[in-house]
Amino acid sequence: MFASVITAYMAPAAAGSGIPEVKAYLNGVDAPGIFSLRTLVVKVVGCIAAVSSSLHVGKAGPMVHTGACIASILGQGGSRKYHLTCKWLRYFKNDRDRRDLVTCGAGAGVAAAFRAPVGGVLFALESVSSWWRSALLWRAFFTAAVVAVVLRALIDICKSGKCGLFGKGGLIMFDVTSDTVAYHLVDLPPVILLGIIGGILGSFYNFLLEKVLRIYNLINEKGTGYKLLLAATISIFTSCCLFGLPWLASCRSCPADLSEDCPSIGRSGNFKKFQCPPDQYNDLASLFFNTNDDTIRNLYSAGTDAVFQKSSILLFFVTSYFLGIMSYGLVAPSGLFVPVILTGATYGRLVGILMGKHSTLDHGLFAVLGSASLLGGSMRMTVSVCVILLELTNNLLLLPLVMLVLLISKTVADTFNANIYDLIVKLKGLPYLEAHAEPYMRQLTVSDVVTGPLQTFHGVEKVGNIVHVLKTTGHHGFPVIDEPPFSDSPVLFGLILRAHLLVLLKKKEFLHTCALSSFDASKPFSADDFAKRGSGKHDSIDDIELTVEEMEMYIDLHPFTNTSPYTVVETMSLAKALILFREVGLRHLLVVPKSSSRAPVVGILTRHDFMPEHILGLHPFLLKSRWKRLRFGKSTIIKFFSSLC
Amino acid sequence: MFASVITAYMAPAAAGSGIPEVKAYLNGVDAPGIFSLRTLVVKVVGCIAAVSSSLHVGKAGPMVHTGACIASILGQGGSRKYHLTCKWLRYFKNDRDRRDLVTCGAGAGVAAAFRAPVGGVLFALESVSSWWRSALLWRAFFTAAVVAVVLRALIDICKSGKCGLFGKGGLIMFDVTSDTVAYHLVDLPPVILLGIIGGILGSFYNFLLEKVLRIYNLINEKGTGYKLLLAATISIFTSCCLFGLPWLASCRSCPADLSEDCPSIGRSGNFKKFQCPPDQYNDLASLFFNTNDDTIRNLYSAGTDAVFQKSSILLFFVTSYFLGIMSYGLVAPSGLFVPVILTGATYGRLVGILMGKHSTLDHGLFAVLGSASLLGGSMRMTVSVCVILLELTNNLLLLPLVMLVLLISKTVADTFNANIYDLIVKLKGLPYLEAHAEPYMRQLTVSDVVTGPLQTFHGVEKVGNIVHVLKTTGHHGFPVIDEPPFSDSPVLFGLILRAHLLVLLKKKEFLHTCALSSFDASKPFSADDFAKRGSGKHDSIDDIELTVEEMEMYIDLHPFTNTSPYTVVETMSLAKALILFREVGLRHLLVVPKSSSRAPVVGILTRHDFMPEHILGLHPFLLKSRWKRLRFGKSTIIKFFSSLC
Repeated sequence: MFASVITAYMAPAAAGSGIPEVKAYLNGVDAPGIFSLRTLVVKVVGCIAAVSSSLHVGKAGPMVHTGACIASILGQGGSRKYHLTCKWLRYFKNDRDRRDLVTCGAGAGVAAAFRAPVGGVLFALESVSSWWRSALLWRAFFTAAVVAVVLRALIDICKSGKCGLFGKGGLIMFDVTSDTVAYHLVDLPPVILLGIIGGILGSFYNFLLEKVLRIYNLINEKGTGYKLLLAATISIFTSCCLFGLPWLASCRSCPADLSEDCPSIGRSGNFKKFQCPPDQYNDLASLFFNTNDDTIRNLYSAGTDAVFQKSSILLFFVTSYFLGIMSYGLVAPSGLFVPVILTGATYGRLVGILMGKHSTLDHGLFAVLGSASLLGGSMRMTVSVCVILLELTNNLLLLPLVMLVLLISKTVADTFNANIYDLIVKLKGLPYLEAHAEPYMRQLTVSDVVTGPLQTFHGVEKVGNIVHVLKTTGHHGFPVIDEPPFSDSPVLFGLILRAHLLVLLKKKEFLHTCALSSFDASKPFSADDFAKRGSGKHDSIDDIELTVEEMEMYIDLHPFTNTSPYTVVETMSLAKALILFREVGLRHLLVVPKSSSRAPVVGILTRHDFMPEHILGLHPFLLKSRWKRLRFGKSTIIKFFSSLC
Repeated sequence: MFASVITAYMAPAAAGSGIPEVKAYLNGVDAPGIFSLRTLVVKVVGCIAAVSSSLHVGKAGPMVHTGACIASILGQGGSRKYHLTCKWLRYFKNDRDRRDLVTCGAGAGVAAAFRAPVGGVLFALESVSSWWRSALLWRAFFTAAVVAVVLRALIDICKSGKCGLFGKGGLIMFDVTSDTVAYHLVDLPPVILLGIIGGILGSFYNFLLEKVLRIYNLINEKGTGYKLLLAATISIFTSCCLFGLPWLASCRSCPADLSEDCPSIGRSGNFKKFQCPPDQYNDLASLFFNTNDDTIRNLYSAGTDAVFQKSSILLFFVTSYFLGIMSYGLVAPSGLFVPVILTGATYGRLVGILMGKHSTLDHGLFAVLGSASLLGGSMRMTVSVCVILLELTNNLLLLPLVMLVLLISKTVADTFNANIYDLIVKLKGLPYLEAHAEPYMRQLTVSDVVTGPLQTFHGVEKVGNIVHVLKTTGHHGFPVIDEPPFSDSPVLFGLILRAHLLVLLKKKEFLHTCALSSFDASKPFSADDFAKRGSGKHDSIDDIELTVEEMEMYIDLHPFTNTSPYTVVETMSLAKALILFREVGLRHLLVVPKSSSRAPVVGILTRHDFMPEHILGLHPFLLKSRWKRLRFGKSTIIKFFSSLC
């Protein structure tokens, strides 16, 4: 409840895992408030509260968001609101550097959550970032290395035991040193089966999660009270499951020659007494009454084939599967990673038990592979999940099997639906720009999607006009056109940004006549004036007060215009324009006419013009064309082959 | 000699490691013959010959090239020359798919060479590829997984011992299971020192290698005889070192309680007898008379601090360092990876011995870190080297230390020179396109670098004109311009490729008058006619025989023209044009005029126009400008900080 209350009232942007938001940000979508200091605090506190309440949520996603938040706040040069600024950090006042920082931060989050530095780097590369440069790889690696060294140093310092649980499995580290993992060709069929079913389960997980999120969204829209009520209901339901279900399991007698207590009562211990007589333990209670990390470690442990009963594992699997789906959409920081890993481990154990004597593989290994299959099926990450699992289990000999399972489950799941983060991004309505062009875009030209009246400015423009346009439109970029007497014929001079116009209006260095400014017009400004503001901080045109005389004056826009905007000819294929827009990472793309007799600019393309919804809204017939059918139909075989090669 | 002879006479493209060529290919530079079947065969056979001759060369680089070759040949749909074609493979008859395949192949090569699947994927990503998509990551991962599973299966099959040395360390796999690697904060200073010196040694390695390659190039240019003579000289010199130097080392008595023979004679065994009396061994001979893989394994082994003497290690280090540099430029397939790893391991051991009691770290661990530092210093790869080393040693606990060493050595080395592959690419004169724009490019516009007369075609062009232009120029793309009567004013219609013009000329479907073709002109052609040919296979204009009447006829180019070429305005900043060119992966970029009164195309930019040498040749004053000084000067501090952040 505490987590839900602070999230709902203080920072709604902190709800959920945050990975979809980070992913969208790195794609170029600035959702409001996702990287503010307030979100950061709520995320950290709320995540601790939510996880410790035994809600079936993870901490990896929130840690990724936390890392990205810290990176973004550093990149903004600290928080000006709280007077925490640093001069050195001002170098990051542009989009690209800030995006790089956020990528590194996200990678550091995973590296810290799983103590998996390489996995963190790969995660940032594979699932979060949209653009990637070689230099970024090395910077993300540096960040992850610092995380690894700091963690190591803290653990070293805490060896004395003064830090409580820190470094003792409080962070996940499944030292599953089952020294010799033996597997042979005959073990492949069960593993392949595990991958196939895991893929189906994973895509079904995504399917259910999307439906549940839709229902939750309807409830949450009704008001904060409903949000909190929903959170309370799920939390109470979870507790009921936790305390109620173990009664269904029968007691088992403790195994001989154990190094730990059996049965045990209290926080730690893998053999919980619960309602059992002395010398017996309840295996289902052992699963429920440990932290998620400890449970996963138990499931991964080798040589424990006899510890769990089939019925307990099955019950725990079903509970975990559905609790994970129900807990995610609550208004509290919550990750998906750990629940999916846990559910997958149980699923793997279950398959191992069902295999019985048909397979010689250890059930702990089955659990690891089960986690991999469910992760591959729901998150569709391959390389990063593989490396994270290897770093968790610290056993590289598992590599070929884990790879195989991941590939199979991802391939199977890809035939059904998209990965979980894409589904959430779509559900949140964030305009995420895909890297590939849809086939029907090849049939269109850019002029087919240009809409709406175009607002342009003259090279020397009246203040009143600028204010009027800024007040009546929400556009962020405006073409600047030179007309006679400044040029022989109307010519595109460049593109000016709304943010820069606001800076000009604020400074009030206006001209009295419509002429090129004779002095150096850029002199009163420093580069810092035009620096990218922190996320969520915009100047507004309504804040600028201008007198009637000032409205009649002029501004020479030439020195402040980007004279090298990217342009495409109106007959350019939409697919190729999308590739340009996406690969170069643009926000505005000017469309120029083919023949020279018309106005020098035909339109301006932004991210929204490339969204399939927008294009299909303008050209509904495309929905029925054969391209469309090929793409969205159930032609899973084609997809399968194209994803293979 | 055998390796040199087949390389020199059959496939000169197979010389060297092949990684620079693959890297350049993925950047868009098709060097002749690098992916032919002949190169593949020579590479495989020559590599086996060169490595088994005890020449100080590695096999990882050639294996990368081999993997890329196989991928490229598959992508071409087999070899048509040898009638090995496959219909299904024709889907890859375009640049992008073939590039993706080659990337996967290169990754598979590393995966096979080091049995490091994740390392292979990362290697392909970090050091080979220029463009990277998320889908490619997953395909490379799939390839690596197949490699891992096949390797595993072969080893399983070969357990019986029928396959000779296969699977028994013939491939590198340093099962260095020193189960508990303990290290603490106090061990950091020696490790940091190791990294710094490793970085200096690595960049010095690059420096020397470049000088040696320059000298070798001068010798090799004199003729094939000189090439073979050089190879023979170095080979004999290597043998002299191998057999001569161990005499300098003193004999040591065998350690007690060994599981293996001591002293041993022959191929295997870590304690060579050489000239020693019974019960003694020569440690320098043990280093020299093993395969490189076995030597590395010995150096990495834990608990062997007392096995090697300081003088032997020092001697072996110096020999290995210089032999590695001298052996690379020979006309034979030769890799750099293994020599650098070996030299680095020796260097690490040396530091460990010199540290003496100041460090509690195992000398085997020092060897691993030494390899990392030298790899980081010469190849400048971080993530991939880290993962490859971890997969080799199968010990993830080393991760933070390896990361730290790599970062330090790369940072130190980056202040001195570029990485080894970039140096070789530059030395070979391949026009490699960097991802970033040089600062002085911001001062130029694209019109500043457009040179030479522009060749254009009309929408309906005379055959004779086309033949004349194709014969007199070497351009690969030509703008097609529509003029009255086909349009109101001269208008850019698109871009046509030389290869496509040749296809049109071959088919001889000409028009008798200068008019738009009334029938569907593209009908006689299938998509396959215009498919990308295999590398090295070009049609030539000289092969096409045309009669005088045919020369007077016309071709309607409209159906065969790319109507959506990317264009930039002539006032566009060169830096921004480079970003467009590089990010979208273009071969031709059309420059259009700003004002409409001029011809519709001003020029055409290709890769060569963006080369710094070309630009600085046109604008020599830039060399002296302050931008230039900042960039190329010895301002190592600035570079250091900018590489940190």
